[in-house]
Parts: sequence; C-alpha cells; structure tokens
Amino acid sequence: MTTDKTEQKAQRHKSRQQKVKAGVDAKIAAAQQEKGILLVLTGNGKGKSTAGFGSVVRAVGHGKKAAVVQFIKGTWGCGERNVLEQLGVDFHVMGTGFTWETQDREKDTQAAETAWLAAEKLLQDESVDLVLLDELTYMVSYHYLDVERVVQALANRPAMQHVIITGRACHRRIVELADTVSDVTPIKHAFEQGVKAQQGFDY
Amino acid sequence: MTTDKTEQKAQRHKSRQQKVKAGVDAKIAAAQQEKGILLVLTGNGKGKSTAGFGSVVRAVGHGKKAAVVQFIKGTWGCGERNVLEQLGVDFHVMGTGFTWETQDREKDTQAAETAWLAAEKLLQDESVDLVLLDELTYMVSYHYLDVERVVQALANRPAMQHVIITGRACHRRIVELADTVSDVTPIKHAFEQGVKAQQGFDY
Repeated sequence: MTTDKTEQKAQRHKSRQQKVKAGVDAKIAAAQQEKGILLVLTGNGKGKSTAGFGSVVRAVGHGKKAAVVQFIKGTWGCGERNVLEQLGVDFHVMGTGFTWETQDREKDTQAAETAWLAAEKLLQDESVDLVLLDELTYMVSYHYLDVERVVQALANRPAMQHVIITGRACHRRIVELADTVSDVTPIKHAFEQGVKAQQGFDY
Repeated sequence: MTTDKTEQKAQRHKSRQQKVKAGVDAKIAAAQQEKGILLVLTGNGKGKSTAGFGSVVRAVGHGKKAAVVQFIKGTWGCGERNVLEQLGVDFHVMGTGFTWETQDREKDTQAAETAWLAAEKLLQDESVDLVLLDELTYMVSYHYLDVERVVQALANRPAMQHVIITGRACHRRIVELADTVSDVTPIKHAFEQGVKAQQGFDY
C-alpha cells in the first residue's frame, strides 16, 4: 500500500470511529436513570449461570452485598461455593438434587417452597444489593412455584435492588417484568460431540 | 383435586422425569472425552464478558491457573480486577481505551499486537489451565489482528488448555474451530430504556 492509501484508510477509519463514538456518547447521555435492574439470562446455551455467578463476584468486588439462591443443587461445584463463601456471599441451596434425578413431585415442590421463602426474604431486604435466583425458571415451568407469586415478590422488591434470574424457557410474565433479557442460544456444544463435563470449567 | 387425581398426576410426573433422566444419563455416558475446550461467547446481548469472568473465578476456585487478556480496556471496573488479582489471576490489559474512543488505527493496531503477544505466550504455556481472551473478536473484525494467526495459536495450544473468547460478531474461522459456541441475543436491554450503567452491576 502507498503512504497515500494508508493515510486515506486511517482517515476513513477515524471518521467511521467518530460516528460510532458519537452514537455511543448520545446513548450514554440519554441513559440517566438509576434503578435496580431485573436481568433474565435464559435460552439453551452455555454461560447463563456462569454469568450470574460472575455478576455476584463483580458486585462483592465493589463492596456490594450479594446473595444467591440456587434452585437446582449440583450445577455449581464446591469451587464456586468456596469462593463465594470466602467473599461473604449469603448462599442458599434448594434441598434436593436435580429435579430430573428426584422424580418426586411432592418432595420437589416442598423443596422449591423452602428455597423460595429464602428468596422472598432477600427480596424484602434493602441491605441486599444483588440477588441471584439461579435456575429459578424451572421451578415455574414445572409448576413447583406459582408465577404470579414470583412476579409479585420481584415487583415489590427494594427500588435499587438488582436481581438476576437464570434458566431455560423463562416464563413470559417474568420476561415482561424484566429490564434486560439475554437469550443464550447454543450454536454448538462440546458435550454433544462426546466431550465430558470437566471440573473447573463446566462445574 | 381428589387424592386419586393427585396420585395420577404425581405418577405421570414421575414417569416423564424418568424419561428425561434416562436421556440425560445416556448423553453423560456417551461423553467421555476430556480435552481443552475452546468456548466462544458471542452475540449482542449482555452477559458474555461476565460469564468469562465467572469462568475464571470458577477455575481458580478449583485450584486451576487462569489468565486474562482484556482486549478492550475499561469494560471491567476495578472491582473485578481487584478480585482476580487477589485470587492470583495473571491479568493483561490492552494499552488503549475503547477502540471507538481512540480513533487512531495505527495506535490501536500496535496496542492489539502487544496484547496479542501476551496472549500467544499464554497459549504456549502448559501450566495455564484457562485463558480468557476478553473482547478479542473486535481485534479481528477491525483487522487489527489477522484471523489466521489467531486460529493457528488457538489450534496449537496445549491439548488440555481451555480458552474462552468473548465479543460480538465472532469471525467464522474461530467459530468453526470452537468446541462450544453460545450466541447471547438481546431480547431487551435497560440501557435502551434510559437506565444508565451502574457500578457493581454493569461494570
């Protein structure tokens, strides 16, 4: 490339980037409201709970108070729990295994109820800055929890409290209430190609 | 509901769950290979970098060695960096701000090159269990880095090393090489509704 062409390319890049920056700056200027965000991470792809977990660590890294209610036991290894407990995160785990391990509707419903009572308490506590309701969506899909009861507790929480809900197939009522919703779509997954879940990476 | 109906419903639930469990168990039995996974978290939705960050914390929680190269400075606050550095994570940040802040193609290309050299070194180091290449995709999209060079380094890394690449619009060549790819699609975003990015939650 001649020096002239390089110069032209650099100029084009600069003016393109200036436009991008102007657009981003305008959006940042327009976005002035502060409020507790309800973030839903749904879809069938990998990364939902991990993002929730990362958000909790970020929050405590900023000196915020965070709590976790994990509605399916066993999806996180002790590695994560150790880290969170060292960081002072309030941690509740539902008292049964995977719902497709237990196969007992009544027992699962009771366990979901107990975990949900812990969640409701957190959703009324102004001192808690972030509540992660990990895998909550399944409790609603399986009718272990009534969706309207969940929606009520979310809608009536402290104004500045952030909540993250993870899990596949999030109920429409919760999606409607949410401020930010990401759908994590699997393009491909190593597991489908015969690679096993590995400690320290998958759990 | 009569006791009979409740009983029937519980039985139906149980047999449905047994089928689900059988399917999951069969997949787990089939997935026996262990290898270093290349995970790509792409798409325009919220949660990609946060999931990468969560994966790093998970890894060190299991006593693994993890490293981060952050290709866009400023997307993570000091909260995350504090936590990671306390946990002993090797952390490199590219020496310019957002690429749409700098508007200087040559300077950005040099900064990307320096950051990539750190990445290449990590991708040759067997002692590193997990490498997070945060926001790498933009370096390829903007032609700051040659995609074939990136693909070569990824393909030739230690067999058991996990790598996570985050960022929008991941190049097709990297997606092809990846073991697991999730596309994070925004369904809605609080920012678009005038809510500002908040410390301890968004950054």
